[in-house]
Amino acid sequence: MTATQPLRVALAGLGTVGAGVVKLLDANRDLIERRAGRGIEIVAVSARDRAKDRGVDIARFAWEDDTARLADRSDADVVVELVGGSDGPALALARATLAGGKSLVTANKAMMAHHGLELAQAAETAGAALKFEAAVAGGVPVIKGLRDGAAANRIDRVYGILNGTCNFILTKMEAEGRDFADVLAEAQALGFAEADASFDIDGVDAAHKLSILASLSFGTGPAFGDVATGGIRHVLAADIAEAAALGFKVRLVGVAEAGPHGLFQRVHAHLVPVDHPLAHVSGALNAVVAEGNFVGRLLFQGAGAGDGPTASAVVADLIDIARGEFGPPYAMPAASLSAPNAADSGDRRGRAYLRFMVADKVGVLAEIAAAMRDAGVSIESLMQRGAEADGSVLVAIVTHEGPERSVAHALDKLRGSPSLAGEPLWMHIL
Amino acid sequence: MTATQPLRVALAGLGTVGAGVVKLLDANRDLIERRAGRGIEIVAVSARDRAKDRGVDIARFAWEDDTARLADRSDADVVVELVGGSDGPALALARATLAGGKSLVTANKAMMAHHGLELAQAAETAGAALKFEAAVAGGVPVIKGLRDGAAANRIDRVYGILNGTCNFILTKMEAEGRDFADVLAEAQALGFAEADASFDIDGVDAAHKLSILASLSFGTGPAFGDVATGGIRHVLAADIAEAAALGFKVRLVGVAEAGPHGLFQRVHAHLVPVDHPLAHVSGALNAVVAEGNFVGRLLFQGAGAGDGPTASAVVADLIDIARGEFGPPYAMPAASLSAPNAADSGDRRGRAYLRFMVADKVGVLAEIAAAMRDAGVSIESLMQRGAEADGSVLVAIVTHEGPERSVAHALDKLRGSPSLAGEPLWMHIL
Repeated sequence: MTATQPLRVALAGLGTVGAGVVKLLDANRDLIERRAGRGIEIVAVSARDRAKDRGVDIARFAWEDDTARLADRSDADVVVELVGGSDGPALALARATLAGGKSLVTANKAMMAHHGLELAQAAETAGAALKFEAAVAGGVPVIKGLRDGAAANRIDRVYGILNGTCNFILTKMEAEGRDFADVLAEAQALGFAEADASFDIDGVDAAHKLSILASLSFGTGPAFGDVATGGIRHVLAADIAEAAALGFKVRLVGVAEAGPHGLFQRVHAHLVPVDHPLAHVSGALNAVVAEGNFVGRLLFQGAGAGDGPTASAVVADLIDIARGEFGPPYAMPAASLSAPNAADSGDRRGRAYLRFMVADKVGVLAEIAAAMRDAGVSIESLMQRGAEADGSVLVAIVTHEGPERSVAHALDKLRGSPSLAGEPLWMHIL
Repeated sequence: MTATQPLRVALAGLGTVGAGVVKLLDANRDLIERRAGRGIEIVAVSARDRAKDRGVDIARFAWEDDTARLADRSDADVVVELVGGSDGPALALARATLAGGKSLVTANKAMMAHHGLELAQAAETAGAALKFEAAVAGGVPVIKGLRDGAAANRIDRVYGILNGTCNFILTKMEAEGRDFADVLAEAQALGFAEADASFDIDGVDAAHKLSILASLSFGTGPAFGDVATGGIRHVLAADIAEAAALGFKVRLVGVAEAGPHGLFQRVHAHLVPVDHPLAHVSGALNAVVAEGNFVGRLLFQGAGAGDGPTASAVVADLIDIARGEFGPPYAMPAASLSAPNAADSGDRRGRAYLRFMVADKVGVLAEIAAAMRDAGVSIESLMQRGAEADGSVLVAIVTHEGPERSVAHALDKLRGSPSLAGEPLWMHIL
């Protein structure tokens, strides 16, 4: 095959992203051929339902009922996997594709988070490409930004807003003063959130993406299991209002940091100072910041989901492959990725936002303040807001910078106290 | 040469950026070798003064008194050109390097804006790389972002804050309410602005960069001569205050747009809505927005200058070359770049901010309003602020959206009117 022959693609999965890839390759065909130096052509597709109307003509492509068969097609150079799921048919297809020496492009963050190292090794053995730009931050080319753009830097920290659903919900709560459950229900009705939204709102999706960014940034094997993962389910409109009064926005932020104590990875609701670039990331946007030892702080921002942006990332990977511009999936050979050593969050220092719903009675504030004092947590500010409808009172504390271990001790001391109505909320300050 | 031999670099120019490249290659040596698949080693350097203390040890490198000789060294694979200037020694070195079949990495925006097409053709003929990430937006990997990250998209518009000196001055004027000349003098005293700052403050530097972005975005040959170029010299603290009252920040923005009337390129002071990402780009930061037909709006942001960030971009290019991951300099063969057809700004539609300093006498407002009416310019708002020390009065107008030709006609009508104290200021609204 000479470089002027088209790159031939077998496409697995024809949901909105798969249909988007078909549309993009049709719409921008000539441009892509000029930029890639050769055409990119879909030769075969597979999905659950052949007859479904997807707004694109798929009759011109060969059809496989069995998605796994795409890996065996001799007329394809690359398989694009848009099936989803960390295991099952997606993983089987990925393994078969690479084992057969074909390249693989995937948008599957769960699969990469769980099986990325194995797949990278398979790709290297085969001399094939494994590309996953669409797995993180949708259309934002942050994988390429880290692999190529920031390649000269030791990355010290990578963090960002990695889940558009959570950001959509938080910014709507912020704009309209509404509570979480209410906004989630609306987002689900509008199709902006899945019926089972727990992967999004409990931070799992963002944790998948963060673990991928950490591998690329730090040259460590993917360690999804080490991500301390939290979500936004317990954030109240009142928390957002308190944060605003203090000069912060509330955002679900994934942070990965390589330090002397090891690799720290966390997805959690954070207070972000209003003058930080992430504070201006609204709605379904995603943004990633990488801090390099020479370049300083780089920001990449754009649409984190949607058929067009995600297709843009998938096809950018195909263009890399068509150009022959790909190397080891994690920028260095899988064998040279170091085993990550998970850092203990207790060793971290930072400021915290702590919110308690408490009974409206004498001595509660003293109890909280004593727990903080006994654990060595220094309080920067404390706000108490009048009684809610149910008679409970909101107490919000911002701490001075200190070890997270101390905050955890203070919360342990208060656990089960009859003064508290429900679990306290702990948000970190970025 | 096998791929495991180091990439050997000859470095021309040892100013702050050149010294930064030496420091970076020292500091991140092992990491770069892992990421690039081979080492990257400087073998020879050239600069004006061999003895000058640059904080880096250059005695270990071969020295050339004559910079042009670097192109002839048989022990180098790549020349890094950090000499500067659109022509002269930089261009001679670039031509000789590529003619001799070596690859070239440059941070030289002026040379790329004026001679980029010729150099790209020379690189393609030689099968060598021509890389210029550091020429635009310092450490921000926007060249790679457009060439690779956004490669699947038809880019409709690319725009951004491309000159850190102007942005530093404007944000300082904004924060401190001071006038241009005052802040410029301070920036020069602090070394943040050149003694001869005209390339920066009159928009020429940003125009160089914009023409490079336009070539990559639209597949057109560089057309620096077609950039309508203006600067920030005439922006008053009072303009920034008026803009703020209307919900805008003032920024020097370069905009390139491919439309039905041709390619439009302009560098000009703009009013940027406070909720636009560019409104949050402060100090010496740079940011570029690319709007693609599938990906939507992508934002790349970071340090636009400085030795560390610029060295980061230069070495990222060297890593691309070490990996063998480079193609035609403008992402498609130079021969296939279309000749840009410059669009007439008069055909553009938009909103405008117009500011007049006028004599404090009866009838002046009526004269301005009549000129607007006669030219068909519709006024959205008009503010008149009390007399300045010299007795002149500031009148600021924001127009409704309309053809720029009409605004130009209105200003023509007013030209030379004895009612006006000095030239009006026209800023576009982004």
